[in-house]
Amino acid sequence: MKLKRIAYSSGEPAGIGPDIALYLALAQASQPSSAELVVLGNKQLLQDRAHQLGLDVSLVEYDASRPPQHWPLGTLLVAEHALAGTVTAGELNPANSRYVLNLLDHACRGCLQGEFDAVMTGPVHKGVINDAGIAFSGHTEFFAEQSQTPQVVMMLATPGLRVALVTTHLPLSQVPSAINQPLVESVTEIVASALKQQFACPQPRILMCGLNPHAGEQGHLGGEEIEHIEPAIRDLKQRGIDVSGPWPADTVFQPHYLENADAVIAMYHDQGLPVLKYRGFGNAVNITLGLPFVRTSVDHGTALDKAGTGAIDIGSASYALETALTMVTE
Amino acid sequence: MKLKRIAYSSGEPAGIGPDIALYLALAQASQPSSAELVVLGNKQLLQDRAHQLGLDVSLVEYDASRPPQHWPLGTLLVAEHALAGTVTAGELNPANSRYVLNLLDHACRGCLQGEFDAVMTGPVHKGVINDAGIAFSGHTEFFAEQSQTPQVVMMLATPGLRVALVTTHLPLSQVPSAINQPLVESVTEIVASALKQQFACPQPRILMCGLNPHAGEQGHLGGEEIEHIEPAIRDLKQRGIDVSGPWPADTVFQPHYLENADAVIAMYHDQGLPVLKYRGFGNAVNITLGLPFVRTSVDHGTALDKAGTGAIDIGSASYALETALTMVTE
Repeated sequence: MKLKRIAYSSGEPAGIGPDIALYLALAQASQPSSAELVVLGNKQLLQDRAHQLGLDVSLVEYDASRPPQHWPLGTLLVAEHALAGTVTAGELNPANSRYVLNLLDHACRGCLQGEFDAVMTGPVHKGVINDAGIAFSGHTEFFAEQSQTPQVVMMLATPGLRVALVTTHLPLSQVPSAINQPLVESVTEIVASALKQQFACPQPRILMCGLNPHAGEQGHLGGEEIEHIEPAIRDLKQRGIDVSGPWPADTVFQPHYLENADAVIAMYHDQGLPVLKYRGFGNAVNITLGLPFVRTSVDHGTALDKAGTGAIDIGSASYALETALTMVTE
Repeated sequence: MKLKRIAYSSGEPAGIGPDIALYLALAQASQPSSAELVVLGNKQLLQDRAHQLGLDVSLVEYDASRPPQHWPLGTLLVAEHALAGTVTAGELNPANSRYVLNLLDHACRGCLQGEFDAVMTGPVHKGVINDAGIAFSGHTEFFAEQSQTPQVVMMLATPGLRVALVTTHLPLSQVPSAINQPLVESVTEIVASALKQQFACPQPRILMCGLNPHAGEQGHLGGEEIEHIEPAIRDLKQRGIDVSGPWPADTVFQPHYLENADAVIAMYHDQGLPVLKYRGFGNAVNITLGLPFVRTSVDHGTALDKAGTGAIDIGSASYALETALTMVTE
């Protein structure tokens, strides 16, 4: 079987994204024999960060024209991108914002053109990119736009639990009016399709949350279930999708329900993610479904205060890499 | 030390409330040596249910004039209340709605007048009480009204985690406008005071969630944190309450935060309870704070389909009893 080639965009250079690359190179569990990891970043930055961390990592320049191969532990393959400004761990420098976008651009183009089989993204800092005068609202939006994808779905996963969201980064006051039947249906279809094609679930079983407490209690605590969610579930079932609900969010995350399900669909961010991250305990991956390529991400931010200190946990990054590889292998 | 007397209102007679009383009488761990449990219910009903379940429980009539004593395993003390209609496990009968309210009335009066040290409530069925033409919106509201308490707070607890709610059973669309600085402050004060007086936390440490995803991300994802929650936290701190936040709900339930906290305050039902119930795994108690007496409750409903079958878990009831006893002993 041909080795897969997975790109890791190392993100904000002052954050822990470069550190993650270095620790991945040294972690046996993060060196899958069936894939080659290519770090999109800057060799000098990585060298400096390795020195700061006291890590012995051998950096090798990436050559896109060579087929993927397995590299020994302690070796890191780097696709070189030029920095525009100095990098100090923990200190944001807007001059390097274009560099960060160049990494994403390479990742996206590379995935679309077959250079990479998948991309795993390290953390970026939206604020500093915007400060540099570049409009940027997040990885997901960037990849969706660059690949001309009309709708994507954010799903978080940790061993034993997957949670997909109908709405993502909306103020809570805008959530109820954003929920409608077509949206619930299209999100569910994207989730079902991804579970089939990328997560080895031939007949995906999906649990759908209600919007309101107690899933609206037959209309006594809100009408969105009756008006939007229940009709969506009926239609989806008619189209052969195994989805049940709407379930109260404080009921559905019980083992009795989860053990017979492949994913939970939550209506909004704080309904589904606290329990997922509680369960994941630093070991969660953020997956963008619906793109024409596989994209996973660490589920944390740039952690500027931890860059260069060694006080990081690569659990999420390892799991993001493993998940990307699983998704392209299925 | 004088024994405590705890009332258990056995709730809807067709539900699992009576079954819980019987199983509690037989469970060693639920027979605290420092308390006498008084079941508010009906002796014949309990006798019939014990027969149906094949349980050997000796029912003793409660005499309020005698001091509390320790009863042997297998004995259940019953404060008799007359039923108005027949009871069949699993079948609601509106004729018995008045009986259910009589139990609550006894519990409330008994607590206020010193007959009981605390009440633990079994599940009731709001629908059937309303069907009987009696206005009733829940235990909490009933006890608050009967005891003329202007504000109470709903807190759920499971070993290692307590979550109190600023808003409870509101449609999600009404939550953002219900959040305001005075409410956040008064809820926090009630929680802090209860933690001190009833939970042996001399200097309670409280984590406060934001309302919006990522706690509003400095106003980019909603303004309620800046407008209401942050000023409330500042004022509370000035009054000597150790409260921090607003924290993103998908961050705050991590061990790193929880291990240094006595309670989390969530802004709404589905922000805080899924993770609590996930952690609790059937072992959670619902506590009403702010009443002039201690009230705990099982965190589940009447489970009509399980009444009389033996397929119940008394984990929540045992924990509710244990919590009530701890709260009155502190």
